[in-house]
Amino acid sequence: MTIPSRIAVDAMGGDEGIAVMLAGAARARRRFDGMEFILVGDEARIRDGLKAHPNLAAACEIVHAAEVVAADAKPSQAIRRAKTTSMGIAIDLVKQGRAGAAVSSGNTGALMAMAKLSLRTMAGIDRPALAALLPSLGANDTVMLDLGANTEVDERNLVQFAVMGAAYARTALDLARPRVALLNIGTEEMKGTDSIRDAAAQLRAAKHLPLEFTGFIEGNRLSRGDVDVIVCDGFSGNIALKTAEGTARFVADLLRRAFSSSLRSKLGFLISKPATELLRHHLDPNNHNGAVFLGLNGIVVKSHGGANEVGVDTAIGFAAKMVRDELTRRIAEDLGNFEAKAA
Amino acid sequence: MTIPSRIAVDAMGGDEGIAVMLAGAARARRRFDGMEFILVGDEARIRDGLKAHPNLAAACEIVHAAEVVAADAKPSQAIRRAKTTSMGIAIDLVKQGRAGAAVSSGNTGALMAMAKLSLRTMAGIDRPALAALLPSLGANDTVMLDLGANTEVDERNLVQFAVMGAAYARTALDLARPRVALLNIGTEEMKGTDSIRDAAAQLRAAKHLPLEFTGFIEGNRLSRGDVDVIVCDGFSGNIALKTAEGTARFVADLLRRAFSSSLRSKLGFLISKPATELLRHHLDPNNHNGAVFLGLNGIVVKSHGGANEVGVDTAIGFAAKMVRDELTRRIAEDLGNFEAKAA
Repeated sequence: MTIPSRIAVDAMGGDEGIAVMLAGAARARRRFDGMEFILVGDEARIRDGLKAHPNLAAACEIVHAAEVVAADAKPSQAIRRAKTTSMGIAIDLVKQGRAGAAVSSGNTGALMAMAKLSLRTMAGIDRPALAALLPSLGANDTVMLDLGANTEVDERNLVQFAVMGAAYARTALDLARPRVALLNIGTEEMKGTDSIRDAAAQLRAAKHLPLEFTGFIEGNRLSRGDVDVIVCDGFSGNIALKTAEGTARFVADLLRRAFSSSLRSKLGFLISKPATELLRHHLDPNNHNGAVFLGLNGIVVKSHGGANEVGVDTAIGFAAKMVRDELTRRIAEDLGNFEAKAA
Repeated sequence: MTIPSRIAVDAMGGDEGIAVMLAGAARARRRFDGMEFILVGDEARIRDGLKAHPNLAAACEIVHAAEVVAADAKPSQAIRRAKTTSMGIAIDLVKQGRAGAAVSSGNTGALMAMAKLSLRTMAGIDRPALAALLPSLGANDTVMLDLGANTEVDERNLVQFAVMGAAYARTALDLARPRVALLNIGTEEMKGTDSIRDAAAQLRAAKHLPLEFTGFIEGNRLSRGDVDVIVCDGFSGNIALKTAEGTARFVADLLRRAFSSSLRSKLGFLISKPATELLRHHLDPNNHNGAVFLGLNGIVVKSHGGANEVGVDTAIGFAAKMVRDELTRRIAEDLGNFEAKAA
């Protein structure tokens, strides 16, 4: 696949550090022809790590950063180190136009605060949102936003999240007209808060947008593949996403317990290995890795701190597709269309 | 087990109707010595159904109800039929003191509205809450509330939910000092909304209550068994509960797909049957059935509409334990203690 673009990678973030970030970038380099990298971090350690990845070494430049944002740093502390940390410098490269997108596995709160301060919120967007992909039973993953950037939202925010989420689904999932639903505690029109009902009314009326609004969706259908984009406030979105993660792990743990409960079960497990591996593959967060901050003047992707090289590769791939599809411009256009008709 | 009590059962509710409600009550009757029932509904059909359950027939009276609350009835419609529907009459039997608790598998919104109107909110409680049990990896299930009765709450509501949920955990789970946590989007003190932070501060200070406040809990740890009571607003609680249900079903569906993907996997499945049955048993909602409205002057239990006879039996068992332990009085006492110290 040819996606000519330059991605700034915060090489220092993540639980596993430089080795995983470089291995992930090297994988992405093999997938995407013409992709170039700016690796940001401790120059000596990056040079050392690159010895294992000649393909990446040939397609990157290194920008030295003296500091790293700590995993437990408060956002307010981190933004004071924007000029010296690998995370801050990677974002700044996007602002300067030297990179099309930045990818980091570091502290989410710090990344969000730095990105917002440096890149600024897009004209017409009140608040940026954090979007990610959930596995589903459908043909494609499901985009969900907001996942924690905004604990409280109003109807205007929810409508903007829907527009941004649909634009992202068109890019990340290659869908022409994504199906969009609002997360709610029932599917009847009178359910939920005033903001949710108002947002639903606005989206129902906005038939000219490149999305199909399907109404409300409940928590038990998040993974069914009925919709492509699920829109919610950051509080319940974060709760839902983490509950889904936790429940999948809970079921896997019960399964492990059950399979080791008797000799017969252990034997069954050995024989079923291809089946359980298939399940593991489908649920592996590395195959859905890459949360995106939507609504900023620039693309910033958050890779999971615990992602492996496959996960980092996945996240870089999403960043590259957003650069190729000019996601920021698309969102601005859709939003302009929405507001022009609504006015 | 001896729990002398009389339970009013709305015999008409639920997807499966009378047969399941009677079979469930008959099971409960075998578990609890001295338990008596008032079966509310179509008298002729109940008499007919009782022929299969002589043990239940010997321990019940029948109160005829001419109408049934429809599954899709709006709460505002249902309350106008409180005097004539099986649901309304079952609740009224609690109000009159003829039954210690009412159990229904009918429409949740209608049940909540009728129960609130008839039994009234307890002195000192601003809003009743819906509580249920989640399966966990720990030694006992976990109580979670609110699950949808209140879409928006303040810190006072959350503290009252904590007190009520702990009292319920002492009864339903036989715990002396339940561990209570607030659902939040992070565990650090500054996370979440003002209401959540304020509620946490009040609960941290309330050391004289028969509960141990453990701080915040995130969605990914709901099923780990770290805490006994999880407190949240009804919106995110409903989302979390349904997301957990949906994800468990999603994983089970993936597993089914994986196990039927090849001959080897199918063979493995047959051999592993005891293991997968164990899993199924642990996750079966019938073993955790029975949501409770806490904060009313009387006990009302909502059995899941799709529950089988085991589920109905489980729900009736919880109702009986709450009657035995005088849950309403306990909540009033705890609340009095909390407010006396806080004043």
